[in-house]
Amino acid sequence: MGTLHRGKQSVAFDQHPAILASSAIAGKKEQEGPLSAYFDYVSSDTKFKQKSWEKAECKIQELALDTARRKAGIQNQEIDALYAGDLLNQCISSSFAIRDTGVPFFGLYGACSTMAESLCLAGMAVNSGYARIAAAMTSSHFASAERQYRFPLNYGGQRPPTAQWTVTGSGCVLLGQREAGPFLNAATIGTVVDYGIKDANNMGAAMAPAAYHTLRAHFDDLRLTPADYDLIVTGDLGMTGKEILMDLFRRDGVSIGGVYNDCGTMIYDLEKQDVHAGGSGCGCGAVVLCGYILRQMAKGKLKHVLFCGTGALLSPLSTQQGESIPSICHAVSIGVERR
Amino acid sequence: MGTLHRGKQSVAFDQHPAILASSAIAGKKEQEGPLSAYFDYVSSDTKFKQKSWEKAECKIQELALDTARRKAGIQNQEIDALYAGDLLNQCISSSFAIRDTGVPFFGLYGACSTMAESLCLAGMAVNSGYARIAAAMTSSHFASAERQYRFPLNYGGQRPPTAQWTVTGSGCVLLGQREAGPFLNAATIGTVVDYGIKDANNMGAAMAPAAYHTLRAHFDDLRLTPADYDLIVTGDLGMTGKEILMDLFRRDGVSIGGVYNDCGTMIYDLEKQDVHAGGSGCGCGAVVLCGYILRQMAKGKLKHVLFCGTGALLSPLSTQQGESIPSICHAVSIGVERR
Repeated sequence: MGTLHRGKQSVAFDQHPAILASSAIAGKKEQEGPLSAYFDYVSSDTKFKQKSWEKAECKIQELALDTARRKAGIQNQEIDALYAGDLLNQCISSSFAIRDTGVPFFGLYGACSTMAESLCLAGMAVNSGYARIAAAMTSSHFASAERQYRFPLNYGGQRPPTAQWTVTGSGCVLLGQREAGPFLNAATIGTVVDYGIKDANNMGAAMAPAAYHTLRAHFDDLRLTPADYDLIVTGDLGMTGKEILMDLFRRDGVSIGGVYNDCGTMIYDLEKQDVHAGGSGCGCGAVVLCGYILRQMAKGKLKHVLFCGTGALLSPLSTQQGESIPSICHAVSIGVERR
Repeated sequence: MGTLHRGKQSVAFDQHPAILASSAIAGKKEQEGPLSAYFDYVSSDTKFKQKSWEKAECKIQELALDTARRKAGIQNQEIDALYAGDLLNQCISSSFAIRDTGVPFFGLYGACSTMAESLCLAGMAVNSGYARIAAAMTSSHFASAERQYRFPLNYGGQRPPTAQWTVTGSGCVLLGQREAGPFLNAATIGTVVDYGIKDANNMGAAMAPAAYHTLRAHFDDLRLTPADYDLIVTGDLGMTGKEILMDLFRRDGVSIGGVYNDCGTMIYDLEKQDVHAGGSGCGCGAVVLCGYILRQMAKGKLKHVLFCGTGALLSPLSTQQGESIPSICHAVSIGVERR
C-alpha cells in the first residue's frame, strides 16, 4: 500500500475528489456586503423564521445541505459520510441540523477552521473509497455566537478596533468522483499553535501564527511556493491578523501579498459596515469559499486556490481562567485541474 | 480504485491498522471500582495537581498521550495525525492538552461517542496511508462536566435513579501498521437518532436507540451476527440504557445478552458506589476499552470485540429551549486476528 502522507503535515489526494456542488446561505449584514450576489439564499430575518438564534443557526445548516444536494441532484441516502461542526457549545447547530437526514455523521470541533477541517476529512473519505459521496459543512451566527462568547446583545458592549464580526452563514460542499472539477488536490493538517495572545477581542493576532505555520508546512511538504496559487485565502484573520501573517512571511523574505487575501476582509465593506477588523466565525470562510471563490473557479477566473481555515480554540471559561488562545489552521488545495 | 464502503454505514479496514499501544488514566472514584487494576495511572487528587478541574482534565489527556507514546516507544514527531475531543465547551481539554506537541490535529465533537469516533477516523487515516501512526484520544472529568452541564457541586442537587456519574478519565490509542494485533477490522459510522427523549437525567434512554440503529447497520452491512463477537460493548448507556438496548433487540427476536455489556455498568460497583445508573462521559468507554478490554485481548481472553461509543448530542441550552436529545453511536470492530 502506498502512502499518501507528504512531509510533516500534508496529504496528497491522488484520486482528486471533485466538488460536485456547494452552497452558501447568509444573513442580512452579509447581504449588504460586497459578495451578496454570490449567495444561494439570504434572509433579512436574523431568526430565519425560527424561535431562537440557535434554532436559526441549525436551520441555515439544513438549508445549506439541502441546497447543495439539490444542485448536485442527489438524495441524503447517497451521502456516505458528513463532516460538520460549529461554534455553539456541544456543536448543536450541526447535530440538530442533520438529525432527520439519516446520513452517517462525524461531528467536528475546529472552531472557525471547520470548513477546511471538514473538507480535509471528507476529501480523505472520498479519495480512499470510504465514501462515494461525502459532505463538508459548517455555520456560524452573529447573535448566537455573541451571547455565548461575549455579552447579551442588549448590553450594547463596546468593541475594540481589533474585534471582528461573526458572520451569519453556512456553507456546504459535496465531494465525489467525477471527471469535471474543481478538485481537491492536497491538504495540510494544522498543529495547535499558541504564541501567548490572551486578548479574546484580538483573535486575528492569535490565529495568524497558526496560519503561518500551516502555510510554511504546506509549501515545504509539497514543494510549492505562493506563486503556485492564484489565491491563498485565510478564513477569518480580519485586517489585524492579515497584516500579521503578511509580516511573518516578510521576515522570511517571502512576499505573499500578491496572491493573498482573507475572507474576513472580503465579506464586508470594512469602511462602511462598522465591523471593525472584519468578519469571523466558521461561516465566514464557508460562505466566501462556497459562494464567491468556487463560482470564480467555475468561471475560470481562479485556477488554483489554497483555502486555509483558521480557528481560535478558546472558550469563555479558558479565558476566565487566564489561559492564552491556542489556534489552528488547516489548508486545502483546490484546483480546476488535477495536479 | 476499490471502495472500502460497505452497505449503508460501514467501512472495511482492509489493511487492518494495529493498536500499537493504549493508555488509561483515571480518578479516585474509578480507582475504587472493580477495574482499578487495569489503569495505567490513577490520582486521588481530583485536580491532578492543577489549579482547576478543567486544567485537570487537560492534564489527564496529556498523561494519556504521553503514557501511550512511552509504551509504544515513539515520539510526538512520529504521530502524523491525532483525533481528539471531549465534553467541555469548545473541547478545550483536547486543544490545550496537545498545544505543545506539534502533532497534526483534528478536533472532534462526538459527545461520549468520541473514543469510537476518533478510532474510526484514526483507523481510516492509517488504513489508507494518510498517517503512518495516528492517535485517538478523549477524556471526561466528573467535576468539570457537572458544573458545565448541571449544577455547581456545592449545590448538592439530588440525582434521579436514571442519572449517571461522569467518569474522570482519559484514554488514548496509537494506531499503526504492524504484524501483531489487536487490529481494527471494520467500523460502522453512526447517524443521528432522536426518539424524542427530553430528560437530560436519562441519557441512557436517549442513547440506546442510537446504539440499536448502529448495531443493526453493522450486522447488516458486514453480514455479521452478535455471535461473531465475544464482547459487544457500549460506551455509557448505564443500567437504564442497557436494558432498553437489549429490549429493542428482543423485539427483533435477537438476543444479545450473552455477549453484551456496557462500560458504564462495568466501571463502578453499582451496588456500593452510589452512582445510580452507572458511569458516563467520554472517559467511561475510553478507560474501559484502553484499560480493561485491550488488556483482556492481549491475554487472549477476548478475541473479537465490537466497541460502540454512544453520545448524547445535547447542550444545556438545547434542553432549556425545549429540545429533545439527539444521539449517535459509532462502532469499531477490534480483533486479535485480521478478518
